[in-house]
Amino acid sequence: MKAPSTLALTMGEPAGIGPEITLAAWRAVRAAGPVFLLVGDPALLPGAPLAIIERPDQAAEAFPHALPVLPLPLAAPATPGKLDPRNAPAVIAAIEQAVALAKAGRAGGVVTNPIQKSVLTAAGFPHPGHTEFLGELAGTGVPPVMMLACPGLRVVPVTIHMSLKRAAAELTTRTIVTQGLVVAEALRRDFGIAAPRLVVAGLNPHAGEDGTMGREDIEIVAPAVAALREAGIAARGPLPADTLFTPRARATYDCALCMYHDQALIPVKTLDMDGGVNVTLGLSIVRTSPDHGTALDIAGKGLADPGSLIAALRMAADMARHRAEGGAA
Amino acid sequence: MKAPSTLALTMGEPAGIGPEITLAAWRAVRAAGPVFLLVGDPALLPGAPLAIIERPDQAAEAFPHALPVLPLPLAAPATPGKLDPRNAPAVIAAIEQAVALAKAGRAGGVVTNPIQKSVLTAAGFPHPGHTEFLGELAGTGVPPVMMLACPGLRVVPVTIHMSLKRAAAELTTRTIVTQGLVVAEALRRDFGIAAPRLVVAGLNPHAGEDGTMGREDIEIVAPAVAALREAGIAARGPLPADTLFTPRARATYDCALCMYHDQALIPVKTLDMDGGVNVTLGLSIVRTSPDHGTALDIAGKGLADPGSLIAALRMAADMARHRAEGGAA
Repeated sequence: MKAPSTLALTMGEPAGIGPEITLAAWRAVRAAGPVFLLVGDPALLPGAPLAIIERPDQAAEAFPHALPVLPLPLAAPATPGKLDPRNAPAVIAAIEQAVALAKAGRAGGVVTNPIQKSVLTAAGFPHPGHTEFLGELAGTGVPPVMMLACPGLRVVPVTIHMSLKRAAAELTTRTIVTQGLVVAEALRRDFGIAAPRLVVAGLNPHAGEDGTMGREDIEIVAPAVAALREAGIAARGPLPADTLFTPRARATYDCALCMYHDQALIPVKTLDMDGGVNVTLGLSIVRTSPDHGTALDIAGKGLADPGSLIAALRMAADMARHRAEGGAA
Repeated sequence: MKAPSTLALTMGEPAGIGPEITLAAWRAVRAAGPVFLLVGDPALLPGAPLAIIERPDQAAEAFPHALPVLPLPLAAPATPGKLDPRNAPAVIAAIEQAVALAKAGRAGGVVTNPIQKSVLTAAGFPHPGHTEFLGELAGTGVPPVMMLACPGLRVVPVTIHMSLKRAAAELTTRTIVTQGLVVAEALRRDFGIAAPRLVVAGLNPHAGEDGTMGREDIEIVAPAVAALREAGIAARGPLPADTLFTPRARATYDCALCMYHDQALIPVKTLDMDGGVNVTLGLSIVRTSPDHGTALDIAGKGLADPGSLIAALRMAADMARHRAEGGAA
């Protein structure tokens, strides 16, 4: 199967750094690819070399010379750093259009620029974030799984945006197993890893040290690891989290399932803030995004680093290629 | 004041990797220093060039040619990998002797090889670990504080060996403030930093994001930061832990106070497993140790890496020098 290689990039929050990092990313990859098109308002990039296109299949020819844009007009002119709820519908529509292109096989995958949740919420957007919205637009019957990746490390926070107390209280064997299955399948299909190796971090220090520091690792995490192994997945754990991200340890697995937000995000960001990529697994489409926010405070000042967006584009292209080739044998 | 520069190194668990990394560390630093002596049984290092000494002031002259040993005989011959409770009293006595030398001004500081808690506990050792024992031997009226350091990063876990649930439940403003004061004073006295910059990590993801993910950062952590500032310390926080250890963020502070074990240890070990050093602050003496355990599984096989012990010796020497010079102005 030959899939379209053009990626669809959403404009994200128009008052944030999305427009400028989009242009910078295009400049960085225009020669070597991956080819992408922007779903957004061309007025966000005045003076930039843009190619206004009508269909995704026009992007590749224009790409070396101009940033291809599928135009989607904003309701009001965007000012860097100034949120404007009138533009919320267009921000949402850009996501919907990009997903529709990918679902229809007209784009190889979706890369999303950061959105500002507060302004979307105020405009009636009912989802906690991108990931949940994408789950609705392109779900596959399993909850989408958030993976963070940087060179040499992939992590999945099994619980995400909740207090540490809630994360410890609400962690279940079932959540770990469900996500582990999605991760293993995605590593095969989208990352070309035939026999994915998973590790599962312990919730407590030293993975509870035989129950002397909390029983959760014995009662909740260990049974999840056993269930994943029953399912034929090379999973190990619970392992002490502090020694799980040393260079030596990182070489022994393809993805670490972490029990809470900071356990997963600290090692990725400690290693490589700018090259970090956020990937959504368990969707019918390929989706990545840069691992940072809208950075309203520096928007429009030419200070924003396009590194993470470039990494997100490259990773989406790789994933789309693996998926088109049918994944690992 | 001229302080003795010789460090006292304890033998630690005789069946562990302590003896071999001691010899390897001596080989690595014999030419350039720091000078140290081993408090332990010379029989642990058969065939090695040892200088049996009677007093610490004899160590410096011997050091370039032989590892100085203040002899402290074991009750039974040690076998790598085989714990023997009969040797527990000598392991404990080595710590006591090293501390006594430092307290008497006859050693510049104490570096401890790893001990095996279980065998000491079985022999009646009532302390949870090295740190608490040292607090009893050389305390200053405040609870000792554990700091982990690697090149470019110092962290303090404010809560340590307890389950994540307990850490979240038992965290108090007072603990954070007490430890912050000890840390700031130690950075001045032992690290020569005149105006130490502290950051305080949030307990919850995104430091609670204005209370939407837990109230602890507002109710417990923020008041501690305010109290530290009241006390004249340049403290900032609570800050989101995931972005606190990026290369850029690390350059903005001298030590990060972390709210639980893995929040502190993950970034240090992710960055530099072998060069990590464990430092005890708030004692009347200088004390460091390598940031690893006894490694019984590889003991005696010549596989152990002396990197962390060497880093611990160098850091203790630096701390002793700063302390002798009266700390930062």
